[in-house]
Amino acid sequence: MSPTLRILPEGMSLPAAEGAVLAEVLDRAGVALSLYCGRRGLCGKCLVEIVRGPLPALAEDERTLLARRGLPPKFRLSCRYRISADLDVRVPEFSRLPRMPVLGRGVERSFALEPDVRKIRMTVPKPALDSPVALLDLVRAKFPQIDLGASPDALRALVRAWEGGGPDGELTAVLFADRDLLAAEPGDTAGEVYGIAVDLGTTTLVAELVDLASGTVIDTAAALNPQVKFGSDVISRITAAFGATSRAAELRDVVIAGLNEMIGGLCERNHVPRDRVYEAVVAGNTAMNHLFLGLPVDTLAVAPYFAAFSVLPPIPVPASGLALNPAGRVVVAPNIKSFVGGDISAGLAAIDAGHHPGSFLFVDLGTNGELVLKKGARFTATSTAAGPAFEGMTLSCGMLALPGAVFKAEDRDGRTVVETIGGRPARGVCGTGLIDLIAAALRQGRLSPQGHIADPSKRIPVDGPVELTQKDIREVQLAAAAVKTGIRMLLEANGTAAADLDEIYVAGAFGNYLNVANAMALGLLPRVPAEKIRFIGNSSLAGARAMLLSAAERERCEALVGRIDHESLARGAAFQALFVEALEFKEWS
Amino acid sequence: MSPTLRILPEGMSLPAAEGAVLAEVLDRAGVALSLYCGRRGLCGKCLVEIVRGPLPALAEDERTLLARRGLPPKFRLSCRYRISADLDVRVPEFSRLPRMPVLGRGVERSFALEPDVRKIRMTVPKPALDSPVALLDLVRAKFPQIDLGASPDALRALVRAWEGGGPDGELTAVLFADRDLLAAEPGDTAGEVYGIAVDLGTTTLVAELVDLASGTVIDTAAALNPQVKFGSDVISRITAAFGATSRAAELRDVVIAGLNEMIGGLCERNHVPRDRVYEAVVAGNTAMNHLFLGLPVDTLAVAPYFAAFSVLPPIPVPASGLALNPAGRVVVAPNIKSFVGGDISAGLAAIDAGHHPGSFLFVDLGTNGELVLKKGARFTATSTAAGPAFEGMTLSCGMLALPGAVFKAEDRDGRTVVETIGGRPARGVCGTGLIDLIAAALRQGRLSPQGHIADPSKRIPVDGPVELTQKDIREVQLAAAAVKTGIRMLLEANGTAAADLDEIYVAGAFGNYLNVANAMALGLLPRVPAEKIRFIGNSSLAGARAMLLSAAERERCEALVGRIDHESLARGAAFQALFVEALEFKEWS
Repeated sequence: MSPTLRILPEGMSLPAAEGAVLAEVLDRAGVALSLYCGRRGLCGKCLVEIVRGPLPALAEDERTLLARRGLPPKFRLSCRYRISADLDVRVPEFSRLPRMPVLGRGVERSFALEPDVRKIRMTVPKPALDSPVALLDLVRAKFPQIDLGASPDALRALVRAWEGGGPDGELTAVLFADRDLLAAEPGDTAGEVYGIAVDLGTTTLVAELVDLASGTVIDTAAALNPQVKFGSDVISRITAAFGATSRAAELRDVVIAGLNEMIGGLCERNHVPRDRVYEAVVAGNTAMNHLFLGLPVDTLAVAPYFAAFSVLPPIPVPASGLALNPAGRVVVAPNIKSFVGGDISAGLAAIDAGHHPGSFLFVDLGTNGELVLKKGARFTATSTAAGPAFEGMTLSCGMLALPGAVFKAEDRDGRTVVETIGGRPARGVCGTGLIDLIAAALRQGRLSPQGHIADPSKRIPVDGPVELTQKDIREVQLAAAAVKTGIRMLLEANGTAAADLDEIYVAGAFGNYLNVANAMALGLLPRVPAEKIRFIGNSSLAGARAMLLSAAERERCEALVGRIDHESLARGAAFQALFVEALEFKEWS
Repeated sequence: MSPTLRILPEGMSLPAAEGAVLAEVLDRAGVALSLYCGRRGLCGKCLVEIVRGPLPALAEDERTLLARRGLPPKFRLSCRYRISADLDVRVPEFSRLPRMPVLGRGVERSFALEPDVRKIRMTVPKPALDSPVALLDLVRAKFPQIDLGASPDALRALVRAWEGGGPDGELTAVLFADRDLLAAEPGDTAGEVYGIAVDLGTTTLVAELVDLASGTVIDTAAALNPQVKFGSDVISRITAAFGATSRAAELRDVVIAGLNEMIGGLCERNHVPRDRVYEAVVAGNTAMNHLFLGLPVDTLAVAPYFAAFSVLPPIPVPASGLALNPAGRVVVAPNIKSFVGGDISAGLAAIDAGHHPGSFLFVDLGTNGELVLKKGARFTATSTAAGPAFEGMTLSCGMLALPGAVFKAEDRDGRTVVETIGGRPARGVCGTGLIDLIAAALRQGRLSPQGHIADPSKRIPVDGPVELTQKDIREVQLAAAAVKTGIRMLLEANGTAAADLDEIYVAGAFGNYLNVANAMALGLLPRVPAEKIRFIGNSSLAGARAMLLSAAERERCEALVGRIDHESLARGAAFQALFVEALEFKEWS
């Protein structure tokens, strides 16, 4: 009869094959163990308490691991323990794989902490005189399943770390993607490993400093994209770089400088040495991704509008220009198609789109309007030139969602009541406020569905000096029509209708403040039951963080983009007809 | 009945399965075809003439390939042609895999030209408007079996090449190891691809400029290793760098500068643009390999004497410091053990040691004395501190094998007759001359086997001002004894004797001028029939060239070093006893 394994504190019992490795049996039983070093007995993260059952003698390194953690002698490495008889095992919380939340609200999901960058502490004693194995091969021997690569820099770091690692040669190896030795540090620094997640927005840059050992976000920084001086929207940015390699390089330089300032600030105020930061994941739209890499954007500017790359292997830090540990890697979230970029692939990663069981529409209302539809197993993406109206950039009264921005408005008996961020005096209007103001004006008859302001002044007063002009209304009309037409064509091309969607994910700066009823009243979103609308906030950043914390999430994202079809909106008559119709502010019929 | 294939001009006939791909049938029949692009129909190097048999319509790209080569319409790509009926095929010389000779003399062998760096010309038309595939993915589609990697630099080069490639997007992709897109050049530059093979000697640097498209050596340059100012031999070089990272960096800088000057000269005088040089293979001993990479040599200086690395993956050019195309790669020939380095692994590659059917001894008499013994399937390596006597560096009269060096001497009736290089007046003595002079002096009784000069002046006149001093004789005695003891211990450790060896390969500067009888008379080489001695010259350079011209040769070399055991000579009493005995100039008994 096969031995019985009882798992505590769950209390679950199951039969186990004699000779089976405990870690593997636990894994199959659904107990998510931390197998950080890949079952090589190096990291000591899969220790379990043998409550009842055989206790084989401790190996020398196991004894060290227990002593280092201050654990009693009943603990064993489950990746080494072979089951020989009935066994009661307690799996402590610290040996369980931590699960990382992705999106704070709207969508509940989490994944296991398994970053590409892993730090593994080890001791590398001197080889014997009659077996002078090379230092790199002594380290390689710890990872027999891997053909471990190393650059000359990594090798130099390894020699230095080994020399500085005391009589036992204690050092911490830094690995990437279970393939490359990035660096080594003397002593045990396994707990000090960090990464940066970046949302490379056309308007705003957001960077997070993430602890890759615990999976927690330490701090966040945001700043205006310094490229705005070359133009506020993607098209003007592309135009600025078109045909001029030197200008593309300049655009690259300013954004890299901006990012490095943010990274520097994050590290400094959190007392994290920059050289402990070994990875960044950067998610931007196609043009931002290209400019980040200093790539020409000319092919994005003229038909047939195509990108230089979709999936790119992780980049050595020096080639990226970012000021992290130069031995590290930078991952650029893959571009899906010409104008559906890494911000959207990251957003899809954030919602785990590849595993979505039903149908959904993903809407990102940033500077550009990007759309992804999933129907059955098919993904279709498109983009609409919405312009930056919703980010407030081109309106007379437009502003980012900063203190003093009107972010909410409602009609109370014919009077428009507004709320500003921070309760400050109104300085301008941000995206959500704009939608509310227009919906209120429509309801009050101050604005016609065709977008004409009734008052002869051709102005709609908002609060204090802030007002909407006829030109502002036209901008919003064009932006909303572009989004609406994009959604319509995407649904039609897939032979489906808005009513058949299980979910509509709304990504972007709108956050929770978008009034869904007003957005539907303007026709910006299709008319569906409100509970189908999910606000996922900055899903580009959330997806970048997911890829930073999990190699599996990164790989899944890279695999997904290859499956996404493209629907071109630039095909003339059909688009034009729908677009003209969509210029009217009204609910979907 | 299956169709019959007749291969011309061989006249060989064989049955072929219907539907089989012609290239594969030819390959199995032993007709070594050039399948440069990996049977993807891109390179047009496997074109054959269909003399009799079905002629399917030419595909568009096949028609272009034929036109470009000026070939009649009876030619077809054999990697595409499927056999459907009896067939007579003429395989022209230009479609056959060129075979590269390795060593000019001593050992006959050759291998197929299949470099890691390959240039493939292609056309990349714009994608369709409704299928905006990314440029990199259009190129990847040409290599469906490969997961082609690309750096941002490679991507930038690809975009530029594509933009400069005319309306058809004609460009030449540069691939490395069937894995990485290194770069791209506009138009068809497939014929312009070069590499550098380097023998990184302690005393002398030799570099060859090699045409990787044809496999021919274009030019060779040699120079004194500028590191000699830090010490003439390996030990003094290691001592100079010991414990001082900055000194190691300085040693690195001077050798890189020296190599770059040679590479620059080779490119300039042969009108080869440096940015068409995409690879270098560098073969040096362990210390030279370490210093080339700027690695600390401290672990080589003290027991247990071990290297930082044995096999290292190809290095990006910028990390090497060499002035080639920065997108290229530098391969460092793998170190075998602490003091048996890449010069020896390259030497073993040159003689294809991994496929040697019998037993051999490999002797490299450079600055250090390195030895490899193969017996059965077992390889054993060791090194002896011979010192640079044989390279003439530490003798009062010593010099390199340059014009004016005594390179040959013989006793004619008690009188020593010498020959100098170039017939110039004698300026000094090089290694081969030294051995001849000592053998002559022994025969004449001017020198005792114990190394005492009979004449009270303690000098042996050579020619003009050139003479051997007692100190010179002592140096040679020590050097020869070190080599002799090494060989003895290696044979003993493997339970074999010199008489059982099939071959003794003698590598190094001695070339063909070493008088074998004299070398045996001094005991430098074991007494074996002269035809068993093979002079293989600069096998380090030949092996580096082999690895440059053939990925398979490189991989084989890397696999072989892992199979080589180490025999340490530094184990006290046994070595001392043998060494003292070996100090006497006499034949092996």
